[in-house]
Amino acid sequence: MRDLNAIGRIGIGDRGGVTRLVFSIKELRSRQVLIHLMRQAELQIHIDGIGNIFGRLEGSDPKAPAVLAGSHLDTVIHGGKYDGPVGVIGALEAVRTIRENKISVRSPLEVVCFVGEESSRFGFSTLGSSLVAGEVHPKDLTNAVDPQGTKLADVLSSLGISPRNLHQLQRPSKSLKAYMELHIEQGPILEAKAKKIGLVTSIAAPSRFKVIFKGRADHSGTTPMDMRKDALVASAQLIEYVETVCRKFSSMARGRVVGTVGAIKIEPGVINAVPGRAELSIDIRSTSAQSKDKVAKMVKERAEQIALKRDIGVKVLNIRAENPVPLDRRLLRVTRTLCDDKRIDYEIMPSGAGHDAMQMAKITPAGMIFIPSRRGISHNPLEWTDPGDIALGAQLLMETMIRVANENL
Amino acid sequence: MRDLNAIGRIGIGDRGGVTRLVFSIKELRSRQVLIHLMRQAELQIHIDGIGNIFGRLEGSDPKAPAVLAGSHLDTVIHGGKYDGPVGVIGALEAVRTIRENKISVRSPLEVVCFVGEESSRFGFSTLGSSLVAGEVHPKDLTNAVDPQGTKLADVLSSLGISPRNLHQLQRPSKSLKAYMELHIEQGPILEAKAKKIGLVTSIAAPSRFKVIFKGRADHSGTTPMDMRKDALVASAQLIEYVETVCRKFSSMARGRVVGTVGAIKIEPGVINAVPGRAELSIDIRSTSAQSKDKVAKMVKERAEQIALKRDIGVKVLNIRAENPVPLDRRLLRVTRTLCDDKRIDYEIMPSGAGHDAMQMAKITPAGMIFIPSRRGISHNPLEWTDPGDIALGAQLLMETMIRVANENL
Repeated sequence: MRDLNAIGRIGIGDRGGVTRLVFSIKELRSRQVLIHLMRQAELQIHIDGIGNIFGRLEGSDPKAPAVLAGSHLDTVIHGGKYDGPVGVIGALEAVRTIRENKISVRSPLEVVCFVGEESSRFGFSTLGSSLVAGEVHPKDLTNAVDPQGTKLADVLSSLGISPRNLHQLQRPSKSLKAYMELHIEQGPILEAKAKKIGLVTSIAAPSRFKVIFKGRADHSGTTPMDMRKDALVASAQLIEYVETVCRKFSSMARGRVVGTVGAIKIEPGVINAVPGRAELSIDIRSTSAQSKDKVAKMVKERAEQIALKRDIGVKVLNIRAENPVPLDRRLLRVTRTLCDDKRIDYEIMPSGAGHDAMQMAKITPAGMIFIPSRRGISHNPLEWTDPGDIALGAQLLMETMIRVANENL
Repeated sequence: MRDLNAIGRIGIGDRGGVTRLVFSIKELRSRQVLIHLMRQAELQIHIDGIGNIFGRLEGSDPKAPAVLAGSHLDTVIHGGKYDGPVGVIGALEAVRTIRENKISVRSPLEVVCFVGEESSRFGFSTLGSSLVAGEVHPKDLTNAVDPQGTKLADVLSSLGISPRNLHQLQRPSKSLKAYMELHIEQGPILEAKAKKIGLVTSIAAPSRFKVIFKGRADHSGTTPMDMRKDALVASAQLIEYVETVCRKFSSMARGRVVGTVGAIKIEPGVINAVPGRAELSIDIRSTSAQSKDKVAKMVKERAEQIALKRDIGVKVLNIRAENPVPLDRRLLRVTRTLCDDKRIDYEIMPSGAGHDAMQMAKITPAGMIFIPSRRGISHNPLEWTDPGDIALGAQLLMETMIRVANENL
């Protein structure tokens, strides 16, 4: 908790909000603190070409593949102090405890801090872990620009990072035995079910798209109801439909679909004008690719129907469509057995949010342990997890790492 | 048209949009041009304490009450060149023509330009005509601030206007015989019915209020559908209801109700968060006070029901509720007779938008003549009325002024 709070004070601002955007001075400082802590723990430190940090404790068999555990230290704007750091500091504490107690492990253990898991600055998430998984092409990277107009390419070169070398960061699968990530749930399920631990089966993926209705802006006083082309009323019908259809697909069996209209922009957007244009940002997620794609298709079709019926224009802009990522069943069996042995009441659940684990799953068996988020709140200064829950999660992470390091999966 | 275009060039900007906010340098310049034109027409000019301009042509009986006609020269931000100036220049042209043709009139005629009809800068409309009608209290005025943070009180004092004298601007009813206003319709009805002239029965008044739904902002990926408190879906249900209920009350008999949700603000307003707060700006108008109040009440009650059902908070903030203003029936009979005599195809209609005439109606018989707006567009650079329609409107205004000046109402 002392180390977690030390990280949490870096970038703290109004109402306790924490802002450590990737490559900002605050985020770089938090990495420096981690390197210091790793050094104190006498871990071998390796920093790769993008800035991912690996702190290694050798096992009894130096040729054995490594068991990795970690997460990220960057945050959203005005976020909390648990999303990310809990997984990094939790892994550090696990490895430190193993070392201090001279617990024997066959495989080496590595604490990892990935760069840029949050999309808040440059618009794409899991930057560091994507590169380690061999997934990001330098060309995508260098086109990215932050809201201040600063190019990622310029940020990288000012830090002495050459984008040309980034495709060399992929970590060979044979050097890895597993990746485990401890993370706050960022949702309300564990708290609602009074469970202390969530064991994650898979990571839901979003389909994101915009729907733009083009009606006609008219004077709100002089335009009779039957002569209007109101883009906001059309939007309202679609917003209700998103809720209705997602509720129908919300069971575990149908892939726990969730759908959100998170942003709406209307024009002209003044009290005395009929809205002529409305732009909705829609996010549909599921652990089932089939359900997600079906619901996204249904929403898009409904948008067309609404526009047709109201005689207005409509356009759909796809932002991205990703596939859900199943996590490793053998790792899940290990964590489950440990929980059963220790009589920890756990919940088997999917992750609605994305994590570095979904990248790592591409190159090694990956697993995740969730701990409760008070009121399900995340990406917010009110983000909170009880210290006791963090300790329990870190304990389970440690025991998982020991067992995975010593046994065949 | 030459004079109208001269005014239209003042404050012209991008894509032909015209911006002459009240008391801006552009708006003051447009008044100066009008004063010049009135001087050329040899009218007696009087400018009152707020800046309303009166250009007077004496009649045969200098003691007779005056027949006024006019409108305003200020505009919204990026508006058109017809809303307002058509009524001022139309009245000027009418009086000029009467004078040039030595048409005898018993009552004096006055061309009026009212200050600040649009609410765009300081948030309240019909500033100049309200003062002439004795309706605005200096206290309301001096609290007003524009979006740049400039106080109206400071603007007035920098122009040498003392707010303390403003309550003396009321024009005694006995000095007035009638007020006529030529204006573009700002709606689609005349064009749709292929009529050249609209004779206005009454001016609808708005009830404006905000509805604020307070749900809970949650992560869009991790929050199951049944655990959400989505303020935007609640809003969507209300937006649809506003349309539904207004359609039911849209007949002439029920007071031609129109209702619009013109603005919506949601928080946090990002694609990966369930909206926790939504603020809707609602405008309900009707020529029937009873229908307007009933519909506004129904919308507010529905907001409460939606919030109750969804277990979220709701608050209603009343912005203002005004009463519809009936215009003078005798003036309507005069304009109607003139149209019948000249075989002009007219529409008897209410005005959905507010005008200076609704203030003047408090102190003198007031009437309005509408001319078509292409595609009903107003408050927009695309605002357009055919020169022939403007000429016809000004002609009808002139003949109305002559008849009213010479006959008993």
